[in-house]
Amino acid sequence: MLNQFVSSVVDAGREWLQGEKKTGDHQNKDIKTLCHDLLQAKGEATSAALAYEVVITYQNLNKDERESFFNNLVNGFDLDTNALIKYAQTYKTARNQETFRKLMSKTESLRQELFRRINQAQRGTALLVDLRAEVLSGLSTHPHWGLIALDLEHLLSSWFNRGFLRVERIDWRSPAIILEKLISYESVHKIEGWDDLHRRLAHDRRCYAFFHPVLPDEPLIFVEVALVKGLANSIDKILDIDATVMPVDTADTAIFYSINNCQKGLRGISFGDFLIKQVVTEIKKEVPNIRTFSTLSPVPGFRKWLKRKVSNQNAVILNSDSKQLIVSS
Amino acid sequence: MLNQFVSSVVDAGREWLQGEKKTGDHQNKDIKTLCHDLLQAKGEATSAALAYEVVITYQNLNKDERESFFNNLVNGFDLDTNALIKYAQTYKTARNQETFRKLMSKTESLRQELFRRINQAQRGTALLVDLRAEVLSGLSTHPHWGLIALDLEHLLSSWFNRGFLRVERIDWRSPAIILEKLISYESVHKIEGWDDLHRRLAHDRRCYAFFHPVLPDEPLIFVEVALVKGLANSIDKILDIDATVMPVDTADTAIFYSINNCQKGLRGISFGDFLIKQVVTEIKKEVPNIRTFSTLSPVPGFRKWLKRKVSNQNAVILNSDSKQLIVSS
Amino acid sequence: MLNQFVSSVVDAGREWLQGEKKTGDHQNKDIKTLCHDLLQAKGEATSAALAYEVVITYQNLNKDERESFFNNLVNGFDLDTNALIKYAQTYKTARNQETFRKLMSKTESLRQELFRRINQAQRGTALLVDLRAEVLSGLSTHPHWGLIALDLEHLLSSWFNRGFLRVERIDWRSPAIILEKLISYESVHKIEGWDDLHRRLAHDRRCYAFFHPVLPDEPLIFVEVALVKGLANSIDKILDIDATVMPVDTADTAIFYSINNCQKGLRGISFGDFLIKQVVTEIKKEVPNIRTFSTLSPVPGFRKWLKRKVSNQNAVILNSDSKQLIVSS
Amino acid sequence: MLNQFVSSVVDAGREWLQGEKKTGDHQNKDIKTLCHDLLQAKGEATSAALAYEVVITYQNLNKDERESFFNNLVNGFDLDTNALIKYAQTYKTARNQETFRKLMSKTESLRQELFRRINQAQRGTALLVDLRAEVLSGLSTHPHWGLIALDLEHLLSSWFNRGFLRVERIDWRSPAIILEKLISYESVHKIEGWDDLHRRLAHDRRCYAFFHPVLPDEPLIFVEVALVKGLANSIDKILDIDATVMPVDTADTAIFYSINNCQKGLRGISFGDFLIKQVVTEIKKEVPNIRTFSTLSPVPGFRKWLKRKVSNQNAVILNSDSKQLIVSS
Repeated sequence: MLNQFVSSVVDAGREWLQGEKKTGDHQNKDIKTLCHDLLQAKGEATSAALAYEVVITYQNLNKDERESFFNNLVNGFDLDTNALIKYAQTYKTARNQETFRKLMSKTESLRQELFRRINQAQRGTALLVDLRAEVLSGLSTHPHWGLIALDLEHLLSSWFNRGFLRVERIDWRSPAIILEKLISYESVHKIEGWDDLHRRLAHDRRCYAFFHPVLPDEPLIFVEVALVKGLANSIDKILDIDATVMPVDTADTAIFYSINNCQKGLRGISFGDFLIKQVVTEIKKEVPNIRTFSTLSPVPGFRKWLKRKVSNQNAVILNSDSKQLIVSS
Repeated sequence: MLNQFVSSVVDAGREWLQGEKKTGDHQNKDIKTLCHDLLQAKGEATSAALAYEVVITYQNLNKDERESFFNNLVNGFDLDTNALIKYAQTYKTARNQETFRKLMSKTESLRQELFRRINQAQRGTALLVDLRAEVLSGLSTHPHWGLIALDLEHLLSSWFNRGFLRVERIDWRSPAIILEKLISYESVHKIEGWDDLHRRLAHDRRCYAFFHPVLPDEPLIFVEVALVKGLANSIDKILDIDATVMPVDTADTAIFYSINNCQKGLRGISFGDFLIKQVVTEIKKEVPNIRTFSTLSPVPGFRKWLKRKVSNQNAVILNSDSKQLIVSS
Repeated sequence: MLNQFVSSVVDAGREWLQGEKKTGDHQNKDIKTLCHDLLQAKGEATSAALAYEVVITYQNLNKDERESFFNNLVNGFDLDTNALIKYAQTYKTARNQETFRKLMSKTESLRQELFRRINQAQRGTALLVDLRAEVLSGLSTHPHWGLIALDLEHLLSSWFNRGFLRVERIDWRSPAIILEKLISYESVHKIEGWDDLHRRLAHDRRCYAFFHPVLPDEPLIFVEVALVKGLANSIDKILDIDATVMPVDTADTAIFYSINNCQKGLRGISFGDFLIKQVVTEIKKEVPNIRTFSTLSPVPGFRKWLKRKVSNQNAVILNSDSKQLIVSS
Repeated sequence: MLNQFVSSVVDAGREWLQGEKKTGDHQNKDIKTLCHDLLQAKGEATSAALAYEVVITYQNLNKDERESFFNNLVNGFDLDTNALIKYAQTYKTARNQETFRKLMSKTESLRQELFRRINQAQRGTALLVDLRAEVLSGLSTHPHWGLIALDLEHLLSSWFNRGFLRVERIDWRSPAIILEKLISYESVHKIEGWDDLHRRLAHDRRCYAFFHPVLPDEPLIFVEVALVKGLANSIDKILDIDATVMPVDTADTAIFYSINNCQKGLRGISFGDFLIKQVVTEIKKEVPNIRTFSTLSPVPGFRKWLKRKVSNQNAVILNSDSKQLIVSS
């Protein structure tokens, strides 16, 4: 550690002495070279500085340059299958820390290590989520980009692990920068401007979202709930901007009427289950008079779908008094 | 998504209706069974609930049970090398999303997926860090535990990625729960109680640490800096509890006199480089009159070590005025 | 203190045992009786409970009841001038702590003590600010309410003392509950909805407000500033929603283009001077390249007014380079 | 407002242009002159700047200079009783806004206005609290300083109004800068260092304090509570550093065992009642299984005192089950 401590101070100082000069160097390099440099970087600080260059450079790529970069990610940063097979065979016959370490060094594509290093930079995580969104949207015409998508899915699943997410209530006290995102991401029951949003965040409504610490302004998924008396029989009533706001202590039912994933780049990495479970817990704690949890028309066609599912009944109801799961007609 | 939304609400409700009964079920299961259940769990919420059972159960294991559990982790949750080799060969001849997905499903030991799932639970991350610490400390007598250590190193490196860490200044306004950890983790220059700590956090000292969002009370690494006038020639002066606190605007030199890793379970996952770089930046911004950054006796024997390294000189100095890296005698 | 400690615990306990019963008692009392009870209350906790009753009761008064209450405040809670004169004469001839204490007990109207006690309740401060606003708006038809207004001005000046206010930057990260108030309070250059507001809070704009700790959602006064290159010659350009957002580091001039007091009940208690001074300081610190501070058409007719004031010139300019105060033509 | 807006910008700018020169001017003036200047200052910003000079100058006065300053406060900033009597007589015969305004302008000593203006400065409030502490401690030898004490009591009562205070739980997560003050202010049951403090803030203890927004590091009063099973019969047990920490859900009784005022300068301005009431509420909410609130030996001699008070019984008990106030033997 000693050796490293001194050289860290020396490195940090040298970098600071040289100032912007160093930064300038990278700006002319193309993204492929930067990525290779990044993979070979030794010092942590150098690596982080290079990662930041990659972020900046990527953001300025045009459509063609991105396509070319994605193709390069597929072909230039893949698995070495020969080495993988060789080390797997060695490990198979001699299982120990050394053979396992060697095997592990070949089980991932170079992309994964590259992405982990990009993630060190400020805005690195956001870039990777965006990159995956772009890759997914081009998948039909570029099926081999699927390799990139899978690598990112693997990493993002791990980074957006439930243990790292925090649930937050969103209401009229939330920052506008987050609220405007609800307006833009809500696709189940479109939000028609700030007045509509204001009604949906009134005292007899609840909205909760998951956030990741490094994306504090970006809800990952949010669920909208109406607290009502009796079972609401129409989504129109719930969405009515002019509906009177009800005192919460007269409500007995929580209706989950909408849920939306916000990040296309996180497709396939699901949080909905966790969120709903946690929201049920939060509501139980905050509004103990709520005894029934129900879904209602979360999407157009829901009623029809549910009818097929549960014959001639119109809502799934969880009722704590009867201590049974009922589906009311 | 629709289908899943409804069944999530149903699941959350069912679970809540059943309440503590469910929890009770698991408490009699042993940790190996729980781990297998966890790996096979389908719903996210079920998985998180099981993960929490694993955390609780693990914490109550005695020494023998832990050894047995670690051995089971080595042998019962390993790689399927045959499948790995088979899928690697398939992928080698036909590289596409499907063959890659299959290959990826076999490149990791089951431990990694198990650990990722444990990480979903509250305190899951802390458990995994502790588990690795324990595994590392038993490595000499149980060399095969090295497989566990490597898997955890891989995951923890990814989770404790620089992009997820935040640097925080620690001073006399910091929570006592964090300060007491400085006292216990400082091993370079032992802190002799709260008065000594108070002096080390005075206006002419700086202390910075890295934190991870899910371990808010646990510094990962911290560095101690003294702001002085001229180059301090002795660590004793810096550590003197009764030394007069100097006005910061008269200081011209920052001496990095100690750095400590706090988590044994994160051994080999280094942050020191990043931290020092960031601290240099913070100090430059906050105290622009600091022109020299230096290390001094960070550990016993440092002077001797440095002498060997740089012949007959006694400190590494970075000086911005001379625009060169000098080592003063 | 001992005696009081025990009786506090006893009181707190008794109150809690009796629970809602007690609260119910007051709800039938009219506000005048409540106010007299409040003035005579001995224990602090009793006093705070009564104050809360006053707040609740006041909020439910209709227009006639409020008028009657205000008249009662004028006549039923006034100064005892005879006692005041007597004690003033005593103090004049014998200045000591005792004579001074007696004099002080008569120098204020009972209203002031009443208002101070109302202020103990949650939302008490807000009520008093609102009450003064109402009193001021009725002053032309009820000139004697001026006594209430003066008493409140005296107290509110003291409570909204500069030392207790904190300046806060308002931007797109601010809570919607505060932002909607900018829209409603801006009367110099009306804000036409959320898009207009968004532009006014973009990176090349600054908005700062004063807040009081007990009214966290209520800006007291806010000032809007545009950071521009060269002296803007038209307010229309500054207010143009579609104007390109400029990089801040190219700006050299800060134009204070609007200032608004928000609370009618705080009329005559001025903060503007303090706020502007502090905003100049903040901007200097954050954007050191700003060298000129200027006002431009803060209100319709400003240009004309300024022309009269400074003959044929069109803006007041403070320029740090020329080290003089100039008024440009 | 327009006029004022422009001149505020002009003033702020002028001040900034002149920079430190202005500040230097005041540094040679003595505190009496500064106080007179402050009372006559017109602009708010000028007033605040002068107030800051007073704060700085006051802090550097030696003992003799302070005595001289206090004497000057008594004699040079008193009431004008003649004017007071005259305006009181006018108001008596003609009660209207104008006569009331004039009367109000004479009902306070100049000290009060001076103190309000000092309060505008950073650290102004802290200075006034300290000043009163010093005045109170010198009262026996300088009885006429009682006038200052009364004026400050009047202002501080108003500023430290319950409505402006916030209650905060203090635990091991609190900043060390606050914790060290508990150690120094606890005089009922002395805290013997950080280990003792740690035990007093463990999970089965509660400590709450009142804070004022402008003195965020200074508790005003704090109360210590032990959560126990059954009625503790000895303070020694509660204070035992080595006592096992009890799970909170097994406790049924909250024992208020100590309460301390922290600021000598706030003597006579009591918060204890409020604090205890609020703490009872907080504990009821957080730990619903607590059914009994009791005091026990809050001070040496308490048992004896209580015995005298309630004959042969040893604790005041509030029990919610019996719905009566009992004093157990």
